[in-house]
Amino acid sequence: MARVCVAGAGVIGSLFAAHLARVAEVSALVRREEHAEALRTRGLRVSGRADFTAQLAAATSPDDLETPELVILACKGTDLEAVAARLAGHWPEATVMTVQNGIGADEVVAGHGDWRILAAVTFMSGTRHEDTHVQYVLDTATWIGPARGTTYADALSVAELIVSSGLKAEAFADLRPAQWSKLIFNATVNTVAALTGLPHDPHFAALDRPDDLGHLVRGLMDEGKAVAAAVGVELGEDPWEMNVLATERGSAHYPSMLEDVEARRRTEIDMITGALVREAQRVGVPVPLHETMERLIKAKEDSWS
Amino acid sequence: MARVCVAGAGVIGSLFAAHLARVAEVSALVRREEHAEALRTRGLRVSGRADFTAQLAAATSPDDLETPELVILACKGTDLEAVAARLAGHWPEATVMTVQNGIGADEVVAGHGDWRILAAVTFMSGTRHEDTHVQYVLDTATWIGPARGTTYADALSVAELIVSSGLKAEAFADLRPAQWSKLIFNATVNTVAALTGLPHDPHFAALDRPDDLGHLVRGLMDEGKAVAAAVGVELGEDPWEMNVLATERGSAHYPSMLEDVEARRRTEIDMITGALVREAQRVGVPVPLHETMERLIKAKEDSWS
Repeated sequence: MARVCVAGAGVIGSLFAAHLARVAEVSALVRREEHAEALRTRGLRVSGRADFTAQLAAATSPDDLETPELVILACKGTDLEAVAARLAGHWPEATVMTVQNGIGADEVVAGHGDWRILAAVTFMSGTRHEDTHVQYVLDTATWIGPARGTTYADALSVAELIVSSGLKAEAFADLRPAQWSKLIFNATVNTVAALTGLPHDPHFAALDRPDDLGHLVRGLMDEGKAVAAAVGVELGEDPWEMNVLATERGSAHYPSMLEDVEARRRTEIDMITGALVREAQRVGVPVPLHETMERLIKAKEDSWS
Repeated sequence: MARVCVAGAGVIGSLFAAHLARVAEVSALVRREEHAEALRTRGLRVSGRADFTAQLAAATSPDDLETPELVILACKGTDLEAVAARLAGHWPEATVMTVQNGIGADEVVAGHGDWRILAAVTFMSGTRHEDTHVQYVLDTATWIGPARGTTYADALSVAELIVSSGLKAEAFADLRPAQWSKLIFNATVNTVAALTGLPHDPHFAALDRPDDLGHLVRGLMDEGKAVAAAVGVELGEDPWEMNVLATERGSAHYPSMLEDVEARRRTEIDMITGALVREAQRVGVPVPLHETMERLIKAKEDSWS
């Protein structure tokens, strides 16, 4: 039986940990001792698209956990540096999988150890009701690809493990087309939502009047596509089509950066828009609209301190 | 003795009405009967840079007020259409002076009557504590110029009247250089403040890091200057220098659009950024950053309904 450690038990981490605990030995590495204690004694309940309670190990230090073969880094991008630092010196044989938004997570992780690294983007979503209860909302897939020292076969075997646990997953020989589609989509939808207070609703696709929001959304996505083309990535899905489809679906998604802004938490701007802007500078593509969004979000973060 | 009607008794209207009541017969045209009643019975108190209580007439309909020679339209830009409509058919011999932010106020007023029109921009500021009490904070000047059917001499005589009342005022043969400097300044500082939550503080002049806010502020001002140049207006003050000076002064000004957004009120975006974008389109100058700010603010307004 495989041994998996899930580092970070927010929505995504909890969904992975609970499902995988049905087919593997799972441990959760969390920040608060109270959280670890609750998971150890009460287990982790999933509601929504599935309904069960999983038993798992949990601790606040890697020293108190068994050595895993696979570590899923499921924390937010803003916590990645700190979580990777806590793993430094541990479990050198393990494969580490990142699931953060944006690009560049593997680089952050590689700064703290020589692990073999898989990269993933996830489209599943949920709502965390308490430390020991997560609701499984959108059962869309997690896409996995090789990043450092890993191969398509490694991605395939992790995808199979995840699928056997009841979640959706798919392996790719090259994750970048999917990663970049999601990066452009996120850099646009998250920042626009965070600045306007609108969930991802039909405003984002409106093009009727010159001052309609869809023009800005399309402009941001066009800049992103130009960067991807210059970097040499052929996009998986077209971000504008993803946007139109998502806003036509009816239930308006609440982007995580909007939640962060409303809770006055630091956002993932550095790993999403920041990463896109840095790539744009590297390949010499102008991105004035993304620079504008980055400066506005960073200034908004500054307004809280 | 001159007869002046001040339409709209917010901060600016109250400051004009109270001061002018010391040298002229002043009436206030307000929206709420309770407000008119309070002004009639208790007068209008000024604190801060001056300290006195003025007696004045007040009503909710022009029919209940004596015919004035000068009407100061001191309402917000968002109320201008409604206030001008209520004056339609009244006081055809009066000179009407607009004090709204942005440009185009004279056009709105001219749509409701054949009055002679003066345009003004004001830099004074205050805090309204109650219907009958306004605090005079910044004693900067009001600048006045001819707009429709008026001359420099008309502007001069109104400026003299205002100066004799204890406020600062100056007449200009052509107000557009001042109006455009303030338009560009406001279109930038108001929208950036409203989207970030920051008052007009040193962030607005910061240029150290590429993601610093000053780059966006300067980019917005450069777009505005290009429009002014294409329109044929030579700017009075350089908006970027106004910005740097204002943020160095220490006490961070709280722009009105930020107040509007925090109170979830409709903003003056149409008369400020909207006016600038319309002029830019007319003269064929691209303003992608101002279009971005306009779309974000309008979407933010939509998020409240």
